[in-house]
Amino acid sequence: MTQDNSRASAEDSLIARYFKPLATDPGAFGLVDDAAVLSSSGDDIVVTTDAIVEGVHYLASDPPDTIARKALRVNLSDLAAKGAMPAGFVLTLALRSKEDAWLRPFADALGEDAREFACPLLGGDTVSTPGPQMVSITAFGRIPQGRMVGRTGARPGDRILVTGTIGDAALGLDVLKGGAAAMALASSPAAKEALVARYRVPQPRNVLAPAVRDHASAAMDVSDGLAGDLVKLCAASGVSASVEVASVPLSAAAASLVARNVVGIETLLAGGDDYEVLCTAPPAQADALIAAGRAAGLAVAAIGTIVAGKERPRFLDGQGQELALTRLSYSHF
Amino acid sequence: MTQDNSRASAEDSLIARYFKPLATDPGAFGLVDDAAVLSSSGDDIVVTTDAIVEGVHYLASDPPDTIARKALRVNLSDLAAKGAMPAGFVLTLALRSKEDAWLRPFADALGEDAREFACPLLGGDTVSTPGPQMVSITAFGRIPQGRMVGRTGARPGDRILVTGTIGDAALGLDVLKGGAAAMALASSPAAKEALVARYRVPQPRNVLAPAVRDHASAAMDVSDGLAGDLVKLCAASGVSASVEVASVPLSAAAASLVARNVVGIETLLAGGDDYEVLCTAPPAQADALIAAGRAAGLAVAAIGTIVAGKERPRFLDGQGQELALTRLSYSHF
Repeated sequence: MTQDNSRASAEDSLIARYFKPLATDPGAFGLVDDAAVLSSSGDDIVVTTDAIVEGVHYLASDPPDTIARKALRVNLSDLAAKGAMPAGFVLTLALRSKEDAWLRPFADALGEDAREFACPLLGGDTVSTPGPQMVSITAFGRIPQGRMVGRTGARPGDRILVTGTIGDAALGLDVLKGGAAAMALASSPAAKEALVARYRVPQPRNVLAPAVRDHASAAMDVSDGLAGDLVKLCAASGVSASVEVASVPLSAAAASLVARNVVGIETLLAGGDDYEVLCTAPPAQADALIAAGRAAGLAVAAIGTIVAGKERPRFLDGQGQELALTRLSYSHF
Repeated sequence: MTQDNSRASAEDSLIARYFKPLATDPGAFGLVDDAAVLSSSGDDIVVTTDAIVEGVHYLASDPPDTIARKALRVNLSDLAAKGAMPAGFVLTLALRSKEDAWLRPFADALGEDAREFACPLLGGDTVSTPGPQMVSITAFGRIPQGRMVGRTGARPGDRILVTGTIGDAALGLDVLKGGAAAMALASSPAAKEALVARYRVPQPRNVLAPAVRDHASAAMDVSDGLAGDLVKLCAASGVSASVEVASVPLSAAAASLVARNVVGIETLLAGGDDYEVLCTAPPAQADALIAAGRAAGLAVAAIGTIVAGKERPRFLDGQGQELALTRLSYSHF
């Protein structure tokens, strides 16, 4: 979005019209410079980057406002899971064309989310592509020096916590694709809409970031499926885990679809795009995290326990039997 | 490149194989976390982002090692022009396929440049795309608080300086496309190769960054054409300029092509991809900048003077006549 990156005046006017209003931070220099400045005030800067591609991470038919929100929120979700407070972001937008009907709602929604999450646009680049559109965002957070919550700190005896509900976004994608969930919910348009909204517009849990920073021993966001992401966290920490599947929080719609055998719980555990926070904490700290969530109006559920060992985390049903998970994650490749 | 961004194990192994060796900074956590940490030590963090798209900013036939170098160097060039020292970068790679024959030289060259310019990989994201490949990099630099060199500080009486030579990259692209330069240099393979190298692999002027920081009143890198970029700098500073075209530094190959009327000087002034530093400074400071360049083995040429006024900068030939520039910049749109 900097003038230097801009390729001549066509892009300059695009930037001025759509994106300059989003560059509210003084370090963005109103997008008229080559670069932005992030003043650190002695904090560490947490950096995360996530790109979404049309036809891969979102559907060509998705409304532009939801694409903008998803692009920013998947990055905000990473900041939340690291315990960092949003500080700003840069945007790379690869466009086939510069249609006002697409860019106007895209930029407006991006600006609304930037304000809501106190994460202003600092700069960026718009490029022309003959292929699918792509939105790449690098987001920055601030955290006191050395306090970023990593993946390596989970210890045996820690409780495993997850925010919100799991599997709704995967069901929302299934609804959009006309799959089994769409048919089973044919007479429940509100339920379908809610699931689709979870797929299109993640709800990043930045409200929990201070509690994650203060209480979690390890944390990450759930983006590729709870099962696969827990496997990654345990591998990074050199531990194993035992999860009570009955404790995994489900929305009413998801629970009903599982009860009716429309979808198996294992599909939800491996479904992508949840963008909830998965974290571990010793019992007293876990209680503090749950209480902090409650104070903020966010459900935080205890779903299991970290145990010693190197084996893959086990997911146990109500009878204590291990679930056979043939797939751990959703893969876009 | 973080595990969180990685979409399941296919991407995890790609990251481990190709990119983990590049993540030498402790803040990159070996690419096993959701995010990286940039410790600021009280400095400002300069942020710049530039994407290059296959078929738009580079040719599908360009060797992968040169694509990697160009992607990083266009960002390093921005840091140099801001007076900042490289601190690291994050990479977003949109790939059609994951071919070892392409990724191995890409990652190796990126690693070489990361070491050469002391700019380690901090994290990133690889995504699958059915369209053209795209390499998007966000780079970070450090600079003492409040010292980033902007575009707004040029004042009447300042001299206008530019590093290296102008127009070679535009001629290199012409050679690759079999244009007039290719024909005129049919019997000079070395000259053709040198011009193509300037197009494919920019030479960012990071060696001059400390002098830019200490002496320049305004600066930017020349990426879209010297003429158009000077227009932008003057507009941001609220000044005009007078440039002696005969003082614009040309390579021997470019000068020869101009002398033979193969290409007009105005084409070189509007050609893109130079990635030289354009800056302004009061005369004594300009002398210091030129001396700093000389000490570092980098030519810094004085090409004109900033003057008061709002009119477009004038480009004067040897007779003091104004050149009519019909085009100021190269546009990818």
